[in-house]
Amino acid sequence: MTQHFESLSRIKCQALHAKVMSAEQAAELIPSGATVGMSGFTGSGYPKQIPSALAKRIREAHDNGKAFKINVWTGASTAPELDGALAEADGINMRLPYQSDPTCRNKINTGQMHYMDIHLSHVAQYAWFGFLGKLNIAVIEVAGIREDGSLIPAASVGNNKTWIDQADKVIIEVNYALSEKLEGMHDIYYGTALPPHRKPVLINEPDDRIGSPYYQCPQEKIIGIVVETYDRDRVNHFSEPDEVAKKIASHILNFLKEEVRKGILPPNLLPLQSGVGDVSNAVISGLQHGEFDNLTAYTEVIQDGMLGLIKSGKLKMVSATSLSLSPDGVDELNENIDFYRERIILRTQEISNHPEVIRRLGTIAINGMIECDIYGNVNSTHIMGSGIMNGIGGSGDFARNSFISFFVRPSIAKNGDISAIVPMVSHVDHTEHDVQIIVTEQGLADLRGLSPRQRAEKIIENCAHPDYKEALWDYFHRAQQSGAQHTPHILSEALSWHDRYLKTGTMKK
Amino acid sequence: MTQHFESLSRIKCQALHAKVMSAEQAAELIPSGATVGMSGFTGSGYPKQIPSALAKRIREAHDNGKAFKINVWTGASTAPELDGALAEADGINMRLPYQSDPTCRNKINTGQMHYMDIHLSHVAQYAWFGFLGKLNIAVIEVAGIREDGSLIPAASVGNNKTWIDQADKVIIEVNYALSEKLEGMHDIYYGTALPPHRKPVLINEPDDRIGSPYYQCPQEKIIGIVVETYDRDRVNHFSEPDEVAKKIASHILNFLKEEVRKGILPPNLLPLQSGVGDVSNAVISGLQHGEFDNLTAYTEVIQDGMLGLIKSGKLKMVSATSLSLSPDGVDELNENIDFYRERIILRTQEISNHPEVIRRLGTIAINGMIECDIYGNVNSTHIMGSGIMNGIGGSGDFARNSFISFFVRPSIAKNGDISAIVPMVSHVDHTEHDVQIIVTEQGLADLRGLSPRQRAEKIIENCAHPDYKEALWDYFHRAQQSGAQHTPHILSEALSWHDRYLKTGTMKK
Repeated sequence: MTQHFESLSRIKCQALHAKVMSAEQAAELIPSGATVGMSGFTGSGYPKQIPSALAKRIREAHDNGKAFKINVWTGASTAPELDGALAEADGINMRLPYQSDPTCRNKINTGQMHYMDIHLSHVAQYAWFGFLGKLNIAVIEVAGIREDGSLIPAASVGNNKTWIDQADKVIIEVNYALSEKLEGMHDIYYGTALPPHRKPVLINEPDDRIGSPYYQCPQEKIIGIVVETYDRDRVNHFSEPDEVAKKIASHILNFLKEEVRKGILPPNLLPLQSGVGDVSNAVISGLQHGEFDNLTAYTEVIQDGMLGLIKSGKLKMVSATSLSLSPDGVDELNENIDFYRERIILRTQEISNHPEVIRRLGTIAINGMIECDIYGNVNSTHIMGSGIMNGIGGSGDFARNSFISFFVRPSIAKNGDISAIVPMVSHVDHTEHDVQIIVTEQGLADLRGLSPRQRAEKIIENCAHPDYKEALWDYFHRAQQSGAQHTPHILSEALSWHDRYLKTGTMKK
Repeated sequence: MTQHFESLSRIKCQALHAKVMSAEQAAELIPSGATVGMSGFTGSGYPKQIPSALAKRIREAHDNGKAFKINVWTGASTAPELDGALAEADGINMRLPYQSDPTCRNKINTGQMHYMDIHLSHVAQYAWFGFLGKLNIAVIEVAGIREDGSLIPAASVGNNKTWIDQADKVIIEVNYALSEKLEGMHDIYYGTALPPHRKPVLINEPDDRIGSPYYQCPQEKIIGIVVETYDRDRVNHFSEPDEVAKKIASHILNFLKEEVRKGILPPNLLPLQSGVGDVSNAVISGLQHGEFDNLTAYTEVIQDGMLGLIKSGKLKMVSATSLSLSPDGVDELNENIDFYRERIILRTQEISNHPEVIRRLGTIAINGMIECDIYGNVNSTHIMGSGIMNGIGGSGDFARNSFISFFVRPSIAKNGDISAIVPMVSHVDHTEHDVQIIVTEQGLADLRGLSPRQRAEKIIENCAHPDYKEALWDYFHRAQQSGAQHTPHILSEALSWHDRYLKTGTMKK
């Protein structure tokens, strides 16, 4: 690892120059057993040098027969340099609240790591309440340090404000690859309090600003500053959505048009929330070429597609907690930063995902799922009931509190060996009480106002893949001839599709 | 049915006298196929004469070979005179959002009635949004009608404001058995709006008033007024909690004491929310004799025990949506109504259960459950996966948004043939992301900050009944030798305890 002392130009606070050190030196400040709050949200704004240096240190300790693990808290997912490196080194004891790294997932699913999967709106307050134990060290990427010692946030905010406040000690990574002109884009709310002293969060429109552009951090808490001169966030290039994603998006967009026609939604819709991935990209692409104008978004993540929507004038403004942009997206942002800064607000995660604000604004939520059952229960996190995929993220915050909420995915996976619609889900993240609209490429099931049996008819008929439709009808009809009829199930068979997949490699008989 | 025209003294608005009629005449105004929004919340404030008259009319129609069903929406549960009578007559097509009537339950579970089980905070807004279809008629019990035509609410508020606003036509039952001095106790909030026009709900303390004491209803919407002269709400006598309930309560109270000692909770705790039933009564009784002072409550229902807590000065004030009092409780209230009116606020259900307010106040939630699994997923509604018991009620609103939340129940049922702790719940109402503390008479499992495997160890060790502990450990250990290890399950066995109960009458092998 090279040390980067080339320039202290972004550390305007002279008193802090003495704390500049190498990533290796900073990693030395993190002891085994520490609980470390790191920056990072959907592959953006994570520290890029200290985690790798720490992973190296952990491997060396293990090679010398010494135990060395830490607990890692973040905003959401990070990147191979953080989750991947630390998991690979067997350096993580407990990880929360969200991850999507293959190595990390593998360590969790082989029982070598603990993982607590938390609603993103709960994380910061659980730390404030003392529910998660003591936070020892915060490791936070920033775009710069101002003369008064306040910190200019990087491309994601996540839980950084909370980690800085709650940790005993703070280590900063200053990223020189970020545009200095990000300054002013962020809205860091310092009005939170513990009950019984809480007050309303006064956001009535997605573009209301209620905070400051900077993190506050007492200088005495800062124990190290590492200068990054080149590392960019590692986000994949934006890929064109495939035909299946386009079909799902078109079902959603047609439904929204119909709701506008009925007067249920206003002509410019309501603030959009959209998860990450192919279907979201397809929806955004559909909006780009569609009839809706003057849109807004109150969401977690801004991806490349949203920059396009902003540029075309379709999308007036976006509130989020993370800029998760491809290299091309970063270039586009940097080249037009003054334009985008007027139209983008990055907030702390407890505000971007706050039930109070989401319900008040009445967002339109579009989130992916792994599977849903015929009665409308949704599994967003588990593969075949036992293995974690990524985590619930903010989908629960938005699904329950939005004006209207969609759960989406292709009707089959693994070349047709897995059906996304099953008799009973193998894990529940969103209950029947929280699920309104299910969409696959086959069609859309509007579950509002329906009983479980009525929901089953809509879901099987509209959303199931033809290869599995008959078997689902068969289960549903036979279940109606056995036992109680509110949510008819045959318990000895309810999870047999998953069990068959585990044993034979396909859900098909 | 006798007609009660004895007195119009509580109908101060002269112009409405012409609309007074018998319950039978009022029932004639409700046609088959109508969707009817009725008052009523936990056996309190429901119309007492029209539903029975309507049930009679429905039976007569059926006897004559004519179809006659209506859809019934309420605040929550009602009483035999409403749910029981209409279900017995096979008069209900769709029921929402909550019921607890044996006949009603039976009709749902035999497939003769549809039931949609909704978070109580969602109901009113779904009606405003148009998600549930058109509401034709509201049938609302009140304590009186003022000169200007405004309505004095009865012993529960529930969704009455919404039903009156949304229905095309309104029928009123004026209950002369209620104290006229209830006037002024209610806080009916008219500041709600549809997105994008919503504003913060400005409740910062449980005793903040933000509304009016009366319902507003255009006189031309009122098509009938029925005078009740004698009918009281049918609420059972308060019974002394049994030993099991007392043990559960003592685990909760000891835990709260410890949280105060650690500085996590303030000495006067935070506003209490408590479901209905034996354990709640035991907790209230424990508080009556315990060390906590200056308590407040922000809850759904006020039962007899809370009056005692108010009287003793332990409880400063209660906000709820319903007074569910036994005849003795009603007498106590009426005899000291001026005292209680200063300390009780009854709100609309969308405010008593509002996520925004619950999260801001940071309530302490205590709710019953049917079963929970070793990983902390809770089933509050379904018997053996298929049959409805009552409904989710407000437990989801409070569990997810409270400062801290308990799910409680005895560790066994049916003389030990059912274990409340199972390998996998047969239905999920509260996911692993929403469950913090599990309590049975055996002990308390604090799940905060734990991974699924860590939760399993706590739940089995602390909460399971000795008769089932070994079998739970056995399942958990064997599941850890098969498949993915985040949430270890053996899918072919996960629901076998329920299946065995259905087939053999016991979960025991």
